[in-house]
Amino acid sequence: MIERGVGAVLLSVGPELPYFTGYEALPTERLTMAAITDSEAVIFVPRLEAPKVPKGPLPVRAWDEVEDPIELITRLVGTPDRVAIGEQTWSAFTLALQGALRCSEWIGAGELIRELRIRKDEYEIQALATAASHADSVAARLAREVRFAGSSEAEISARIREILVEEGHDRALFSIVASGPNGASPHHDPTSRVIQPGDLVICDFGGSVWGYRSDTTRTFSVGEPTPKQAEVHQVVAVAQQAAIDAVRAGVACQEIDRAARSVIEDAGYGDYFIHRTGHGIGLDVHEEPYLVEGNERLLEEGMAFSVEPGIYISGEFGVRIEDIVICGSSEGRVLNQSPRALVVVN
Amino acid sequence: MIERGVGAVLLSVGPELPYFTGYEALPTERLTMAAITDSEAVIFVPRLEAPKVPKGPLPVRAWDEVEDPIELITRLVGTPDRVAIGEQTWSAFTLALQGALRCSEWIGAGELIRELRIRKDEYEIQALATAASHADSVAARLAREVRFAGSSEAEISARIREILVEEGHDRALFSIVASGPNGASPHHDPTSRVIQPGDLVICDFGGSVWGYRSDTTRTFSVGEPTPKQAEVHQVVAVAQQAAIDAVRAGVACQEIDRAARSVIEDAGYGDYFIHRTGHGIGLDVHEEPYLVEGNERLLEEGMAFSVEPGIYISGEFGVRIEDIVICGSSEGRVLNQSPRALVVVN
Repeated sequence: MIERGVGAVLLSVGPELPYFTGYEALPTERLTMAAITDSEAVIFVPRLEAPKVPKGPLPVRAWDEVEDPIELITRLVGTPDRVAIGEQTWSAFTLALQGALRCSEWIGAGELIRELRIRKDEYEIQALATAASHADSVAARLAREVRFAGSSEAEISARIREILVEEGHDRALFSIVASGPNGASPHHDPTSRVIQPGDLVICDFGGSVWGYRSDTTRTFSVGEPTPKQAEVHQVVAVAQQAAIDAVRAGVACQEIDRAARSVIEDAGYGDYFIHRTGHGIGLDVHEEPYLVEGNERLLEEGMAFSVEPGIYISGEFGVRIEDIVICGSSEGRVLNQSPRALVVVN
Repeated sequence: MIERGVGAVLLSVGPELPYFTGYEALPTERLTMAAITDSEAVIFVPRLEAPKVPKGPLPVRAWDEVEDPIELITRLVGTPDRVAIGEQTWSAFTLALQGALRCSEWIGAGELIRELRIRKDEYEIQALATAASHADSVAARLAREVRFAGSSEAEISARIREILVEEGHDRALFSIVASGPNGASPHHDPTSRVIQPGDLVICDFGGSVWGYRSDTTRTFSVGEPTPKQAEVHQVVAVAQQAAIDAVRAGVACQEIDRAARSVIEDAGYGDYFIHRTGHGIGLDVHEEPYLVEGNERLLEEGMAFSVEPGIYISGEFGVRIEDIVICGSSEGRVLNQSPRALVVVN
């Protein structure tokens, strides 16, 4: 804060607040916000959520339903020239604070905090490894216990969330189940579509353990795959391995993307790989570093990210394989142990 | 827009975009944003999410991973004096747009849109009623099918989400399970705490049907309740009924809160009712009108809201009962049909 001339840091929803306090704010119209100046630091919390805040470094000020938290924060913060605000804060609050504080410059709190968060320490890597191992168990149990044919995407999705929690997750946060032609939409929302023999089914799921996220994707074949399905899956698997093999400290993020992309392009599917190869992961499921063309930042030891190439053929099917990798000095360490081959299910 | 001198409306995550387009943006670092001026309107969507956008009134411009959506939006919007931005837009995007557009005034898009959304039409009420009926089925099945004693809060929570989808919800969005002393924390996150005979268990859950939200709370007793538990539940039930009975067009929102609160205060539990009586519901789970002291706005026909008094006794237990109500000209119509008595479960 001193280096950047920042007089106040305001943190609300998103990963920045739990990074310092262990507490993740609910994204609602009732504002939760830590206000940090060089002399004071307080978390303002709606009274009904105050029992959830763990005892920690910051005193808690619960505000009642008839109070205005913007007024309370303004009073504490005073009139700084420069304020840093948490990057996922709702604009309704950003605008209200801009109106109340009338300081000259607003910056994203990420400018101060991102560099602290981008390299994971031992505790954080342990949390990510624990989360990944739960996700591995989900993948194994999906293959073993779950009947795909005849179930809807929404049912499989709900079951995945349940298994994540059974395996030890604090929360399941997302569970994409994209079957048959729906697999060509990478962020497909599970529907009532009933899964058919002959479908490929992309399952991309994750949640939170001690605040740290899991994010794993496996593609299943309902019955024996067609030669084209098997070929595409094989291309994605080779591309993913090429990207993982490229990981080490000192390599640019875009090189990891290029390693996966060149395999897919050489196989003739370049136009069907319509997203970046990966994203950082930690207290947020998507964070820096992003493995994307144009990102020349160099990987460093302790960075954690997904490696998840995919091929999406409109009207037919999609394939994606995703694991979480920690960057080491000379190689990447894959946290997921679950097999990456195309698994045939019922 | 013309009345308010607004040159551009920018809508991202939250209920405003689906209100006009049927499409709900994912809250991620990849910006989805509809940019609307008096001459043009386009939804900018990350390429990998473009297949999800329903054919609708607005043309879609998919942006690639190597493009900058802020630049694309800036180019379309030009240099308006006044911009309205969706109220849940991440501050990272708000600040970036403020830097790029350099217009003199920013307002919340809610100022233009809130009044359109606050009264529900027949289609919307039908959607809310459908969502409420699914929630009713969950409450019935919880009492009938689920063994509480010996299960963890997290397991019951995951099961509730699964049943919501089985009953027809497109998505389950939240599922609070707060047992025993955890019930005293109104927004408790389900934990690994194993539910015990003698516990009261608050289950507060909801999700989405056609974009419209459900939000229902029932409190269960694991085995016969103690006299104090039964008394507190009865006080909350009477308070809820008093609030529902007070609903009709022309009554101030705060009067509904007062109707519930006075029952609880008269019973000696006023200090334990630590939140407002209810919130509007529609495409967002919390929206206007808020039933809270200080809100003098008058209820109107078609307004939809929760009525959910509660009593929270620290270290002991909590009780909350919640239903969704539509305001009519002379009375409130309760969408939920599920019994509100304290149900004894195993």
